Amino acid sequence: MSKPSIVILGAGYGGIVAALGLQKRLNYNEADITLVNKNDYHYITTELHQPAAGTMHHDQARVGIKELIDEKKIKFVKDTVVAIDREQQKVTLQNGELHYDYLVVGLGSEPETFGIEGLREHAFSINSINSVRIIRQHIEYQFAKFAAEPERTDYLTIVVGGAGFTGIEFVGELADRMPELCAEYDVDPKLVRIINVEAAPTVLPGFDPALVNYAMDVLGGKGVEFKIGTPIKRCTPEGVVIEVDGEEEEIKAATVVWTGGVRGNSIVEKSGFETMRGRIKVDPYLRAPGHENIFIVGDCALIINEENNRPYPPTAQIAIQHGENVAANLAALIRGGSMTPFKPHIRGTVASLGRNDAIGIVGGRKVYGHAASWLKKLIDMRYLYLIGGLSLVLKKGRF
Amino acid sequence: MSKPSIVILGAGYGGIVAALGLQKRLNYNEADITLVNKNDYHYITTELHQPAAGTMHHDQARVGIKELIDEKKIKFVKDTVVAIDREQQKVTLQNGELHYDYLVVGLGSEPETFGIEGLREHAFSINSINSVRIIRQHIEYQFAKFAAEPERTDYLTIVVGGAGFTGIEFVGELADRMPELCAEYDVDPKLVRIINVEAAPTVLPGFDPALVNYAMDVLGGKGVEFKIGTPIKRCTPEGVVIEVDGEEEEIKAATVVWTGGVRGNSIVEKSGFETMRGRIKVDPYLRAPGHENIFIVGDCALIINEENNRPYPPTAQIAIQHGENVAANLAALIRGGSMTPFKPHIRGTVASLGRNDAIGIVGGRKVYGHAASWLKKLIDMRYLYLIGGLSLVLKKGRF
Repeated sequence: MSKPSIVILGAGYGGIVAALGLQKRLNYNEADITLVNKNDYHYITTELHQPAAGTMHHDQARVGIKELIDEKKIKFVKDTVVAIDREQQKVTLQNGELHYDYLVVGLGSEPETFGIEGLREHAFSINSINSVRIIRQHIEYQFAKFAAEPERTDYLTIVVGGAGFTGIEFVGELADRMPELCAEYDVDPKLVRIINVEAAPTVLPGFDPALVNYAMDVLGGKGVEFKIGTPIKRCTPEGVVIEVDGEEEEIKAATVVWTGGVRGNSIVEKSGFETMRGRIKVDPYLRAPGHENIFIVGDCALIINEENNRPYPPTAQIAIQHGENVAANLAALIRGGSMTPFKPHIRGTVASLGRNDAIGIVGGRKVYGHAASWLKKLIDMRYLYLIGGLSLVLKKGRF
Repeated sequence: MSKPSIVILGAGYGGIVAALGLQKRLNYNEADITLVNKNDYHYITTELHQPAAGTMHHDQARVGIKELIDEKKIKFVKDTVVAIDREQQKVTLQNGELHYDYLVVGLGSEPETFGIEGLREHAFSINSINSVRIIRQHIEYQFAKFAAEPERTDYLTIVVGGAGFTGIEFVGELADRMPELCAEYDVDPKLVRIINVEAAPTVLPGFDPALVNYAMDVLGGKGVEFKIGTPIKRCTPEGVVIEVDGEEEEIKAATVVWTGGVRGNSIVEKSGFETMRGRIKVDPYLRAPGHENIFIVGDCALIINEENNRPYPPTAQIAIQHGENVAANLAALIRGGSMTPFKPHIRGTVASLGRNDAIGIVGGRKVYGHAASWLKKLIDMRYLYLIGGLSLVLKKGRF
């Protein structure tokens, strides 16, 4: 009797939690589980704004996959997914091919540039260890060059497009990093500009207005400039062109980071799934329509929140819950049990505003300041505990 | 009765030693001494290959000028010299003007590119705190980008043009830095190339052949590739084109550092002094020909070694001796005494080969290995002691 093979694509939040959930639930002889990821590490996406700004080392935001999984139960393949063949039930990798009986797709997201000219070519994005290491080093390099070319104040200008969670958290960290960076490169801090540009009429759209005001006060106090209700028209090698009162205006900036949106992974689209911005509208068991053996977790899964008839935003919180649900359901399927429909539990949302400040809504209550900042750290540690137990909390947690 | 005014241009080895020598010898009421420098710090040029490679922090290689001088005796002006007017006995600065009775010119050197196309535009040089900070950050940035573009091995290729002292010392430090840099950026060390290109038929031309062979063995063992007897034809944004057996060959390299030669400061030429490669052939008292009140110290001074009828190379050792001689002679002049002609004392020469190895000739004897490396450190510390006493040795010395 052959064991069913489960292939998990991607070791982001959804993928790694699904893998670990299956590892916990199934015995060695119940399934062949393979986890595919292009890096040999998992990273904590919600912390990436910190290594991007240079306020945390990137190694704090990643964990080796083999430190997390039991290799007797899960086979790890370090490779890049090229395509999914739903007819043949196989996955093409850059260096091989895998057959599956059950597939879990957790390939994550890509930046959504909404067709803004030049963003893809000239702006950085915060979406992987590699991408944030580049941002950190790019900024340092600009600061290093400035001392030799003191007329180039654009070397010291950083434009952050988008004032959602990532944008707001990133400008907070950047502002905190500046005193150290200016000392290192003999730069007068008054010459540095951190400009947050957002097309929507407010930062953190959808958040409580009192908290939004608190966030803008705190970040403004740290020196962040806001340009709200201001669309970016295009991004060039010299900076960005924004629209102010119907007129175009150029901001010369050596660093432009785009945090304005994400879409699902393009591999999903290219493999013929029906998608909206790269996301698959899943059934109540997180399965792709018409495919009883393909589960979608994380940013590639589209689920409508019936309360407001809008999709749930792609967050770590929900991706983790997807992973847990899929692990439980797959274990049930393999043992002939019945599946449980997915139901998100939004416990709360906290956005950091630099090292020691934050805002959030937790259990329906507003929190802000130092307490919110601690809450944010606890949420991160709770996740580390979930995937790696106490030892991982001690190794990677921030105290 | 008016005091004579002494203006010292440049706070490199020659200038700072001259200033400190005058400070020690003269009383408050004997002269008005002004020291002009474009930075508010003095730097240890012979150590710059280390912060360039990232094996030493640049702050270790610089000292605040106000930590060294007694401001009651020496007025420090942070400004950039634009021109020297010998007729009017005045110096034009970017932000002012200074009259002098006696002038000490210690404006240092500039890279000599021998007309090689593109070197000035595309190659870095090791000649200031700013320039080496840029090199360090440029290299790190290339390594950071590589993880996201693994086909771009040119990001990991560093070409060092010139195998004189600076070139050899720099490749040694670079090789020592690589394990750390590769770990930081997830780079396979086997993909890194450090290529030292030298047009002359040997590295360290003029050095003892046994020591040259020792140096090449040590550096080769650290992974440095040598291309000796190989001229650089031109430097491009993509790397360098070299000539091998009469044929052009391209080396794709994101980083090119030129250490192939220096010339005197162009301000000296522009101010109408007669120069050879920006250096002024001085009289036995280090004075510019025809100017009894203008002393030249350091890399701008040209002195012929009568033993081989060739100019002494521009080294820190000689610049320091210039500074000492000029301070003594200026003090003598002001007090109506007689001057002593300058006579260089070449005590020895040591070149480091990375962290724990070196070669040298000291007192006519060859030294190499760990002992030579210690000797090098002692030479550096002796200089720190000379300009800043024991406290500076303790603060900046390497043990």
